Amino acid sequence: MDEPKQERAVKTRDGILHAAAEVFDECGFSGASISKIMNRAGVTQGGMYFHFKSKRGLAMAVMASQQDFVDPPKRSEGLQALIDLTFHLARELQRNVLFRASVRLAVEQGEFGVRSDTAYQEWVDHFLKHLRVARELGELLPDVDEAEFAMTLVGAYTGTQLYSNIASERKDLPRRVSLLWRFTLPAVATPEARERLRIHPGKSGLPV
Amino acid sequence: MDEPKQERAVKTRDGILHAAAEVFDECGFSGASISKIMNRAGVTQGGMYFHFKSKRGLAMAVMASQQDFVDPPKRSEGLQALIDLTFHLARELQRNVLFRASVRLAVEQGEFGVRSDTAYQEWVDHFLKHLRVARELGELLPDVDEAEFAMTLVGAYTGTQLYSNIASERKDLPRRVSLLWRFTLPAVATPEARERLRIHPGKSGLPV
Repeated sequence: MDEPKQERAVKTRDGILHAAAEVFDECGFSGASISKIMNRAGVTQGGMYFHFKSKRGLAMAVMASQQDFVDPPKRSEGLQALIDLTFHLARELQRNVLFRASVRLAVEQGEFGVRSDTAYQEWVDHFLKHLRVARELGELLPDVDEAEFAMTLVGAYTGTQLYSNIASERKDLPRRVSLLWRFTLPAVATPEARERLRIHPGKSGLPV
Repeated sequence: MDEPKQERAVKTRDGILHAAAEVFDECGFSGASISKIMNRAGVTQGGMYFHFKSKRGLAMAVMASQQDFVDPPKRSEGLQALIDLTFHLARELQRNVLFRASVRLAVEQGEFGVRSDTAYQEWVDHFLKHLRVARELGELLPDVDEAEFAMTLVGAYTGTQLYSNIASERKDLPRRVSLLWRFTLPAVATPEARERLRIHPGKSGLPV
């Protein structure tokens, strides 16, 4: 029976990933080291090497987990779903070190010789899906290009969470996300949709 | 006469700062080293030590130069001046390595143990000045809080230039800045002001 062995291997891998996320979140890619991560995870060199061959491999695995945090409880659709998603991500950034690390690595990826906007592009695609539903629901103003807005929002959101991180360790992020919507919705949503949409974290479809 | 000596010292210091900016822009703080910067600048250890005692001191000096790039040609006021400033900064990011490095260091400052939103806050204050003039000129909608918009715009702009950097090495930054205005102005400016404002890089008050 291999089951218990496999289970243990999965557990070890998860433990290493979590430790790596903590170290990347605190120190960035360059400041992190395999030995720091091994110590944090409490694994031997052999255990580490069985799962990950390099710091770069670890960083890629942490970054690849980014899209696991995408889905908030599905209680809304169209623009409200997109708004709820941005608040959901704000809370994940506050409490989930794996997500925080993956975002930091994506932002600072020049650091480890990767140069790809894949992580950004995945968010654009995800936002775009909600905007297409919003279009079908008649929530968008006629002159809005969904792809342009998705791209703009991903860029704006990235900087918003960075600034919030440095200003308050992301404590004020929900308020800043709320402001981002307050200053973009009039360009995007019909007056009828805006009347209905909830852009305050406490008032969105999600628990605070 | 000390003049020539002083002149030479200023020139050496400028040369070191420029070399440091190039290295920080390429490698980030952690990836940079004093010896790399010395080689790039073509100075001796003694020359370096006379001006800067540490990599951290160099990074602080590069960051402190950030606000030197603020002022575009003064051809406009109020909202148009703020819009022109954002296009001016986009061009400075494209062509000025010292500004690029200072922005990268400000974004990644966790890397070198500084944690302060001073760089962001200075931009907020700067943006706010233009927004106060815009208020006096009657360009802003009555329900707009200038401080909230300044903070939101600084965050959004930070992410916009990061995303543009990774997607196109900032070649598409002017277009993205233009989109940022297209998606925020309706929440901020009166219809009359919007009619007048130029939010395309080629059509603003500045040369492209």
